[in-house]
Amino acid sequence: MNDETIVKIVLNNWSTTIARANVLFDNLSEEKLLTKVAPNRNTGLYILGHLIAVNDMLLPLLNLEKSMYPELKDSFLKNPDSAKIQSHKVADLRQNWTTVNSKLQTHFDNLTVNEWLQKHGSVSAEDFIKEPHRNRLNVVLSRTNHLNYHLGQLIFLKD
Amino acid sequence: MNDETIVKIVLNNWSTTIARANVLFDNLSEEKLLTKVAPNRNTGLYILGHLIAVNDMLLPLLNLEKSMYPELKDSFLKNPDSAKIQSHKVADLRQNWTTVNSKLQTHFDNLTVNEWLQKHGSVSAEDFIKEPHRNRLNVVLSRTNHLNYHLGQLIFLKD
Repeated sequence: MNDETIVKIVLNNWSTTIARANVLFDNLSEEKLLTKVAPNRNTGLYILGHLIAVNDMLLPLLNLEKSMYPELKDSFLKNPDSAKIQSHKVADLRQNWTTVNSKLQTHFDNLTVNEWLQKHGSVSAEDFIKEPHRNRLNVVLSRTNHLNYHLGQLIFLKD
Repeated sequence: MNDETIVKIVLNNWSTTIARANVLFDNLSEEKLLTKVAPNRNTGLYILGHLIAVNDMLLPLLNLEKSMYPELKDSFLKNPDSAKIQSHKVADLRQNWTTVNSKLQTHFDNLTVNEWLQKHGSVSAEDFIKEPHRNRLNVVLSRTNHLNYHLGQLIFLKD
């Protein structure tokens, strides 16, 4: 009973943060998203692509399914350079953002408490015995932090 | 057993974020903290004072004890204006930040799972029956988000 309540709190925290990001992205024009959030810092487009790539990687990391957008991983996580980043269109990224989050949410809604406490994909069975906190739920918590961190930057694109 | 693991994950998430903030503040000079994080945005000093005031308010909100720095609540939460904000010294704020977080951590270390799931101070007993997620743990989660949001901004003060 308690564990269900707490898992629900953590998942609500994720979905509330995603909802907040959606409102922000919906209120930023393409022109704004092509602007840097601060002098010499990333553009809104880069941060959007980066957040999609991170969420997309949750699919394999949480042992749910294969990632949907490996090309975004290359542009926005592994080997970002301005030519690659600028080759992506804001309209496509907006669509990818919605699609990957919707796919994640469907999986999240179906996992049981015990499944949330199973190990994530980057920890060995051996290490997991010693470090049981390295589970799926912990990954979602850490990604929620990461999303909030970038929301604090994206807000600077608002007038 | 499960519920203890999950509470521990949420609390580790809090203390890891505080530790990350400490590293960042320790690496920012007084001069840097007096700078705006982006054009026409808040200074590092303001964000530091704001984060102390928010953490300080956790003491009464989590029914732990009275707040330590009501004067910071006025300057950085309720009625911020540049004269009030600038009347605070960076060195004092650094000390307040350490003190309030240390006090919170001592309380956090002593709460049981059931105590974490008790209602926070801004929800009525009646509403809490209908909305049991409005508990202490949820507040800590939400404040961890808030801290990450501002860390994403403070990082712009780094060279």
